Amino acid sequence: MGADRKYQVGILGATGMVGQWFIRLLENHPQFTVTALAASDRSQGKTYGQACAWRLPGGMPSYVRSMVIHPPHPPLDCEIIFSSLPADIAKKSEAAFAEAGYPVISNSSAFRMEPAVPLLIPEVNPDHLGLLDIQLREPGSNGGFLVTNPNCSTIVLTLALAPLQVKFGIEAVAATTLQAISGAGYPGVASLDITDNVLPFIEHEEEKIQQETRKILGLYRGDRVEDAPMLVSAQCHRVNVSDGHTVAVRVKLARPAELGELRNAFETFTGVPQSLGLFSAPSRPLIVRDEPDRPQPRLDRDAGRGMSVSVGRIARDAVLDYRFVALGHNVVRGAAGAAILNGELLIATGWLGKERKMKGSLADSSR
Amino acid sequence: MGADRKYQVGILGATGMVGQWFIRLLENHPQFTVTALAASDRSQGKTYGQACAWRLPGGMPSYVRSMVIHPPHPPLDCEIIFSSLPADIAKKSEAAFAEAGYPVISNSSAFRMEPAVPLLIPEVNPDHLGLLDIQLREPGSNGGFLVTNPNCSTIVLTLALAPLQVKFGIEAVAATTLQAISGAGYPGVASLDITDNVLPFIEHEEEKIQQETRKILGLYRGDRVEDAPMLVSAQCHRVNVSDGHTVAVRVKLARPAELGELRNAFETFTGVPQSLGLFSAPSRPLIVRDEPDRPQPRLDRDAGRGMSVSVGRIARDAVLDYRFVALGHNVVRGAAGAAILNGELLIATGWLGKERKMKGSLADSSR
Amino acid sequence: MGADRKYQVGILGATGMVGQWFIRLLENHPQFTVTALAASDRSQGKTYGQACAWRLPGGMPSYVRSMVIHPPHPPLDCEIIFSSLPADIAKKSEAAFAEAGYPVISNSSAFRMEPAVPLLIPEVNPDHLGLLDIQLREPGSNGGFLVTNPNCSTIVLTLALAPLQVKFGIEAVAATTLQAISGAGYPGVASLDITDNVLPFIEHEEEKIQQETRKILGLYRGDRVEDAPMLVSAQCHRVNVSDGHTVAVRVKLARPAELGELRNAFETFTGVPQSLGLFSAPSRPLIVRDEPDRPQPRLDRDAGRGMSVSVGRIARDAVLDYRFVALGHNVVRGAAGAAILNGELLIATGWLGKERKMKGSLADSSR
Amino acid sequence: MGADRKYQVGILGATGMVGQWFIRLLENHPQFTVTALAASDRSQGKTYGQACAWRLPGGMPSYVRSMVIHPPHPPLDCEIIFSSLPADIAKKSEAAFAEAGYPVISNSSAFRMEPAVPLLIPEVNPDHLGLLDIQLREPGSNGGFLVTNPNCSTIVLTLALAPLQVKFGIEAVAATTLQAISGAGYPGVASLDITDNVLPFIEHEEEKIQQETRKILGLYRGDRVEDAPMLVSAQCHRVNVSDGHTVAVRVKLARPAELGELRNAFETFTGVPQSLGLFSAPSRPLIVRDEPDRPQPRLDRDAGRGMSVSVGRIARDAVLDYRFVALGHNVVRGAAGAAILNGELLIATGWLGKERKMKGSLADSSR
Repeated sequence: MGADRKYQVGILGATGMVGQWFIRLLENHPQFTVTALAASDRSQGKTYGQACAWRLPGGMPSYVRSMVIHPPHPPLDCEIIFSSLPADIAKKSEAAFAEAGYPVISNSSAFRMEPAVPLLIPEVNPDHLGLLDIQLREPGSNGGFLVTNPNCSTIVLTLALAPLQVKFGIEAVAATTLQAISGAGYPGVASLDITDNVLPFIEHEEEKIQQETRKILGLYRGDRVEDAPMLVSAQCHRVNVSDGHTVAVRVKLARPAELGELRNAFETFTGVPQSLGLFSAPSRPLIVRDEPDRPQPRLDRDAGRGMSVSVGRIARDAVLDYRFVALGHNVVRGAAGAAILNGELLIATGWLGKERKMKGSLADSSR
Repeated sequence: MGADRKYQVGILGATGMVGQWFIRLLENHPQFTVTALAASDRSQGKTYGQACAWRLPGGMPSYVRSMVIHPPHPPLDCEIIFSSLPADIAKKSEAAFAEAGYPVISNSSAFRMEPAVPLLIPEVNPDHLGLLDIQLREPGSNGGFLVTNPNCSTIVLTLALAPLQVKFGIEAVAATTLQAISGAGYPGVASLDITDNVLPFIEHEEEKIQQETRKILGLYRGDRVEDAPMLVSAQCHRVNVSDGHTVAVRVKLARPAELGELRNAFETFTGVPQSLGLFSAPSRPLIVRDEPDRPQPRLDRDAGRGMSVSVGRIARDAVLDYRFVALGHNVVRGAAGAAILNGELLIATGWLGKERKMKGSLADSSR
Repeated sequence: MGADRKYQVGILGATGMVGQWFIRLLENHPQFTVTALAASDRSQGKTYGQACAWRLPGGMPSYVRSMVIHPPHPPLDCEIIFSSLPADIAKKSEAAFAEAGYPVISNSSAFRMEPAVPLLIPEVNPDHLGLLDIQLREPGSNGGFLVTNPNCSTIVLTLALAPLQVKFGIEAVAATTLQAISGAGYPGVASLDITDNVLPFIEHEEEKIQQETRKILGLYRGDRVEDAPMLVSAQCHRVNVSDGHTVAVRVKLARPAELGELRNAFETFTGVPQSLGLFSAPSRPLIVRDEPDRPQPRLDRDAGRGMSVSVGRIARDAVLDYRFVALGHNVVRGAAGAAILNGELLIATGWLGKERKMKGSLADSSR
Repeated sequence: MGADRKYQVGILGATGMVGQWFIRLLENHPQFTVTALAASDRSQGKTYGQACAWRLPGGMPSYVRSMVIHPPHPPLDCEIIFSSLPADIAKKSEAAFAEAGYPVISNSSAFRMEPAVPLLIPEVNPDHLGLLDIQLREPGSNGGFLVTNPNCSTIVLTLALAPLQVKFGIEAVAATTLQAISGAGYPGVASLDITDNVLPFIEHEEEKIQQETRKILGLYRGDRVEDAPMLVSAQCHRVNVSDGHTVAVRVKLARPAELGELRNAFETFTGVPQSLGLFSAPSRPLIVRDEPDRPQPRLDRDAGRGMSVSVGRIARDAVLDYRFVALGHNVVRGAAGAAILNGELLIATGWLGKERKMKGSLADSSR
């Protein structure tokens, strides 16, 4: 199974905000072809063109317009699942697809903290994919498995923390977020709630950041991931920005560092996606901005085609030693693009190949 | 000199955003009458109605419409100065008024950190007014003096810290602000910079919060104020909100406390303005909101006629022990209203009376 | 039944945006007391404090906090109904209340165009109340009746047209609206739809303006209202403004007029509410702004406590002879305040007295 | 002089909003190379990287970073001038360049209404280029000339009117605009003026639309352009949108038409840029949107890489027969892209060739 063949992809939650980004980002993807759409809402049975209120600039890609929307349970006419279902629905739906033998690459929060499920940022913890062996060894496995990407603000934060963790060690992180409205999906936040306003509350968000960050930065022990032993505190706010999560970060490092070393750690950071040249990988996962007023959502969210996180305002902090501001596109690097990059890593590392044969027999049985 | 007489007030910086709020808040004030307006810009010599682009809802109060705008140097036909001049102009102008014998109640940053100048929040550190004795004892004093109020975000933060400092002691504070555009004055922030955007930089703001907070919470030693020995870290952001600064706060207390004790400390907090019944004093300086999504600028900035700070999301924090979100109206409690409350405290504590006689002779000499 | 007694009011749609404004505006009303709340949603049976997500600055008035929410059908413990139910629910609910003998003062669109139902703006067409005789004379009448106020943008437009209609006659009106998000209720417009955007479509809005304007300005013929014979065209847009509808108007008058005459017609316009001194009536229904950049929503929507419409940019027009821009608060003058002013007019003109006796007997029968 | 060679371009007003778009759009242009930058402000003598506060997403193109900013008067090291200077400065500067022999392609309003200056939209009135002969025949001509593009909202409006004018004739147009903040340049509109607000006034804008539209749609008579004999009325508003002007249009046609004919006229409209395949020409100058809620700035401004105007809500109108809503990107199609397309048309039609020899000699003399 070479990188030169295209995988057939089914999208769960296709009509939502992240689903629309999946459809756009996969339109001309060299390794994935969208062959099936599914959604949990009343759009089932309609064509995508009829059912979906397309909210992204540029219009609905024509290739999905006449595709029919299926219910989100197997079988679906595809080899791989990309999912952005709501957590409660994902719990059942994604499990069903995995049990039926599909590799499920999910943006949902439903299974992120399951011990055997990789919570993956390809530049940060590609070794966590080893957890898939546990899933595949489970009795009754059909070769399906679950891989998840973190919460959108966690990704922005953790990508920026990764080089610090590697080079200096992190003892504590205090992150304060200013999150975009697209993070709540569509219709999401009511305009009356956010016009001329800040909302100091995003349900479950602080807990997700605090838990997920420690898992992602945790040590893969062959049979499990051991949470990183750092303290993580998150305070989350919704602000009147369409796309782009800003995270004000304070960190306490294990070893002292000069500011220039921090800056250098950010700027030289690369990972497996860069060395493998994955299609969606930005040339630089982190972009350092030295201007005093950057990063800004409007100017920096599209850096690296939405896959780079911009870091600025690196400075000493009176309380936690160091500080900086990180910013990334919450729906690209933080959701749809994250899942796609996970898929590309799965191909490059052979994990999609591993289940091919089983998938073949499944395909027969699911007819 | 009783509370029953009215003091004649001159406003420096009368055409600016804070100046307009001075004019509105003093329109029906029982103790102050605006008798003179001054500004540093090209509006001098024009009437206020001609010169000022009034930006506040409700229209320009008629009483100022035909008043002529003077240059910002003495003499001015008034007994007291309220100033919101830019710092560079204030440096010279406010000093000149103080030297000429006027009590100057300033919102400017020019003199806030001067050792002999009180940096006053009436509920927090009214005893710091004792510093005025140093000013009045200086050789050549005409009875004039300078009193300042803090930076707008510092006031919101420090009002919320005050009861914690008193009851539990504070070792460290990490404050992350989401500040309104009105804090930058008019025209201030360009719309292209803040529409669909966050600015992670407000010039000098982080330094101001870090310095001013320690001075305000510092101990008055009779001849000086000793900075509070706490660590203070501030990360400041401008967000697309018209009025109302939000501050996400993490604190490390000197003594452990139950969350209920924190909540109680906030809720029962009162100060000298409340016990004296000062005109602009809110009945509760701090209002605790228990809803998970409060405080919010649009819903809470006008609490206590803009003079109360709302506190919510009180919780334990993984890194600094405790956290909460504070919100206040940056132009009322954070600027014009702050200065006016300072003025009311000066009357109530007799400081305006103390300089009366000197002021009388000055008035003669300045003709 | 004098103006000195208080009428017991039931509010239908109490948890919605207009319902919340009813509750706020009636808090200290001299003639109305809220004694019952009803809503069509899942809030029934809960207290208002539990059920309502209060969205207005200043917090929920304490008087409603523990009131229980009833289903929106009779009987309700009140003498008069103020309704802001959605049109489809209002159709049945308001009819039921009217049949049960309640005077129903409705903000809903359900019955506005019914021939026997007054579509009322008290300054414009108070004589249309004569239609109530038709309702009361219907067989089986219990003394209940329906009075409606127009659509929010229609009110702003028509108040400004009224003096022109009286003085010069109107042949044609082309109105282009820029409407606030609060006009869509809560949650209403999704923030992703209106941030950095304009929506050129508000369902049924253009039709409503075109129909309602002609009815309101129509001639009361004793037994019916004859539509005004003018052409009315409306193009409607939603813009990113919280409150305040802006309407760009072009008019073709029947008789030529100098611009000064138009300005004078606006400025001197008053009506029955002003001459009767109704509690919610602004001293000036129309306020002329001569500044080139007014009216503006943020600066002018609260004029006359939200009950005045501001008119500016009066000029000749190349196509339709004259033009101007009108602006009013869409939820106060355009909805809740409109209904309340209708109620005050009903009291002042004796219409509420007329049904009192019948109402008394009804009260018995509905037990 | 073939289309295969590159022309050296100087940009006047390079640091402004339109100047930045010039720089971005010309980065990889096949026919133009930027060789000189000029500005009227204090940036002269600095490098562009130092002087320019780059406001566009994606960052400053590296090719301009070290170019030095010159004063806006000849000579400049280039063959052609693209100008977006403020009108008052353009008056002198552009005239000087034209007199010195440079073809000046201007976005400024300074010379738009000059009888001998083409006011050009390449799809609409390419024949107006004939006016250049008048300029070139003037005594003392060095071969330089002036070509202008219209005001940003005029372009959006007139592109949509053009097919109606051709097919049905237009007797009257009433246009109401909802214009983006970027149209005012940078810093432009103060955020306090437009947050939660509408401004019903843009200086000179209504006059520009009314005059320019009639000139653009006017008849070229060999030696002059005769204004189109239609009535044009414009009411202009600024709304809280970053980019994209929305125009609500009502038209009175000379000949009756079915709605389908109007729609067809819009949809099939093409012009010289399309037939010549000019680089910046969109395949469709007008894109018809049939959804009831389109066009919208956020979804449609980038259509045709910002060069297409979207038209929707085509309907009969009660007052002026027909109506529709047009939307275009005000800085691309409305300014920088408009000037570049003008430049491309000048190349394709040989006008830049015509002045080549004279330009050659000028180049010598200007050393």
